[in-house]
Amino acid sequence: MATAGKVIKCRAAVAWEPNKPLVIEEIEVAPPQANEVRIKIVATGVCHTDLYHLFEGMHKDGFPAVLGHEGAGIVESVGPGVTEFQPGDKVIPLFVSQCRECRFCKNPKTNQASGRHDMMAPADSRFTCKGKKVLQFMGTSTFSQYTVMNQIAIAKIDPAAPLDKVCLLGCGICTGYGAAVNTAKVEPGSTCAVFGLGAVGLAAVMGCKSAGAKRIFAVDINPDKFGKAKVFGATDFVNPKDHDKPISQVLAEMTNGGVDYSLECVGNVTVMRSALESCVKGWGVSVLVGWTDLYDVATRPIQLIAGRTWKGSLFGGFKSKDGVPQMVKAYLDKKVKLDEFITHNMTLVAIYFTLVAVLSFYPLDEMFHVLFSLGSKQFCVTVYIGNYERLVSQKR
Amino acid sequence: MATAGKVIKCRAAVAWEPNKPLVIEEIEVAPPQANEVRIKIVATGVCHTDLYHLFEGMHKDGFPAVLGHEGAGIVESVGPGVTEFQPGDKVIPLFVSQCRECRFCKNPKTNQASGRHDMMAPADSRFTCKGKKVLQFMGTSTFSQYTVMNQIAIAKIDPAAPLDKVCLLGCGICTGYGAAVNTAKVEPGSTCAVFGLGAVGLAAVMGCKSAGAKRIFAVDINPDKFGKAKVFGATDFVNPKDHDKPISQVLAEMTNGGVDYSLECVGNVTVMRSALESCVKGWGVSVLVGWTDLYDVATRPIQLIAGRTWKGSLFGGFKSKDGVPQMVKAYLDKKVKLDEFITHNMTLVAIYFTLVAVLSFYPLDEMFHVLFSLGSKQFCVTVYIGNYERLVSQKR
Repeated sequence: MATAGKVIKCRAAVAWEPNKPLVIEEIEVAPPQANEVRIKIVATGVCHTDLYHLFEGMHKDGFPAVLGHEGAGIVESVGPGVTEFQPGDKVIPLFVSQCRECRFCKNPKTNQASGRHDMMAPADSRFTCKGKKVLQFMGTSTFSQYTVMNQIAIAKIDPAAPLDKVCLLGCGICTGYGAAVNTAKVEPGSTCAVFGLGAVGLAAVMGCKSAGAKRIFAVDINPDKFGKAKVFGATDFVNPKDHDKPISQVLAEMTNGGVDYSLECVGNVTVMRSALESCVKGWGVSVLVGWTDLYDVATRPIQLIAGRTWKGSLFGGFKSKDGVPQMVKAYLDKKVKLDEFITHNMTLVAIYFTLVAVLSFYPLDEMFHVLFSLGSKQFCVTVYIGNYERLVSQKR
Repeated sequence: MATAGKVIKCRAAVAWEPNKPLVIEEIEVAPPQANEVRIKIVATGVCHTDLYHLFEGMHKDGFPAVLGHEGAGIVESVGPGVTEFQPGDKVIPLFVSQCRECRFCKNPKTNQASGRHDMMAPADSRFTCKGKKVLQFMGTSTFSQYTVMNQIAIAKIDPAAPLDKVCLLGCGICTGYGAAVNTAKVEPGSTCAVFGLGAVGLAAVMGCKSAGAKRIFAVDINPDKFGKAKVFGATDFVNPKDHDKPISQVLAEMTNGGVDYSLECVGNVTVMRSALESCVKGWGVSVLVGWTDLYDVATRPIQLIAGRTWKGSLFGGFKSKDGVPQMVKAYLDKKVKLDEFITHNMTLVAIYFTLVAVLSFYPLDEMFHVLFSLGSKQFCVTVYIGNYERLVSQKR
């Protein structure tokens, strides 16, 4: 490429400080250094975790930054020592890396990474804007037209893959699907409950279905989501607002004692507790999939002593470089759905407004026409069904 | 037996109300009804759970009662429909029953029992004293010379078994040993930490050793227990009071990131949290073994999302009628230790003083001479190494 070895100037949505609008800026993206790859981002999803960093976590030392961690793109150039990738490869950036060498990568029980994987520490960011270093959120920063990643955090995917669809495998869909299949290890004939029907929850429903679950309870306080949940395989639909009893009791009554597996896909500690306590004693397994670090999650010890297991899942338990290409293949083979998650296609300048719309609980449809007219079509932003009920329930 | 079919009058330690001394009373024990067995108790251990009911849980509707749930005895007579037992059989009463017919008993994943196992509801107690119904604590009431149990809650054991030793398999030793072997499923070569070195914790150490653990950290705030822990297989000894840092950080530093398995054998929610957070991310498994229902146990969601698993264990995960005879055999085959747990042998009248001594943190050795002189030697009470540091740490 003509740009190889040179600084690229491009557009990115910069988060200058917490709780403030993203600003579409021209940024400089330095060439890749040893073991690094520069990627032209073609499409990105918007995930609640981006919102979380901006509006909830708000760690002051995490700004300025370029958000976005659910993208897909094409290799523009590679740095010294990179043999696995070459310009033109279709890739998905990974916020969980896989070096294949550390004791975590070598252990089949986990997809966690050792500390040495944290290649994109602030000092190593390849982004600058107006003379300032700009951080790479989650090491990925897919809300930029170009980004630079270490090769241990990139998955090479099938050249036939449509990037504006498979970008969703960079986070939400692998996270939910894998939580059911890899972490909970849902068994055929079992009964499952998925709490929260954002993209992650819907993917968890799809994972339960794929694993052979007989009944899949879709639980959400927004019944408008039930139709979509049915598309992914949900068989029963429960709105906690329709009941005076705790949802764990409602589910216990509907299932003769509780579900075999529950997956919390909200990021709300109260819902996490409900999900655990909705499991049957003896062998029930509950998995935390949603993210929050603002509060403790709690339960009475008897809930565990009675035989329930509490686990958590990061990126669906997938070893990232291995798992993402497999999931891309599964999509191309029509074994997992992706198209059905996508409700809107927007442009970069619309990202911040989209975030605000999601956060403010405005129906995205209402915002859509306004946003579209702002578009510069520089690249495609794929916005899937947002779990925009999340903050409502957090505040309950 | 000459007593078959008749009410037996015998001595028992009656807990008339919470937080008050046990009283040695003459009680009436009715003959066994359908599917029931009357057992002459020969020996019993004293477990912290007895104390818990009397001094901590203090549920008003749980009194008057005869405490004790870690006993061994001989069948005196059987009720209609009992074919599995006959007078003279050596048996261990089980506070977790096994009917072999319900969906829990049929599922190899659990030793939990369905609701129909609760055969000894208050109305069904066979005890009376001074004209009042007396409840059977945990369905067992081994602080009585005779008790009546449903046959689904009795294990027939090897006639060669010494009852004053194997009584400990009725609770503490199976609980700790099984938590390591059955619930945590400790793997050979792994690193373990056991929090709390009462009988349950020491048995957990023995379980870790038996499962092939390479390093076993014994953690207690009373360093006097470390010598005994070494007997059971502990390799490293940590007193949290010797460190300014959180114990989870101390263990992480000693083990390159945390232990593979941790077992909480105290019943303190703060220690439960420490035990979980002492596990290595990715695959660490922490098991709640100690009992409390007074407080919630809590952690940050990231602790689970980082790949730790939180479980609980009841009676060490043993299906009781199957497991207890196997453990008796293991003791007779010298594959598990029991003698080493026993520090004192006392008489029934000493039980309450023993409980108070344990609760009040008096060294048992100091109490021992006083207690022994009170003895009427009606039967043997085996007192093992009490986890009497438990309440100290609960109050921290």
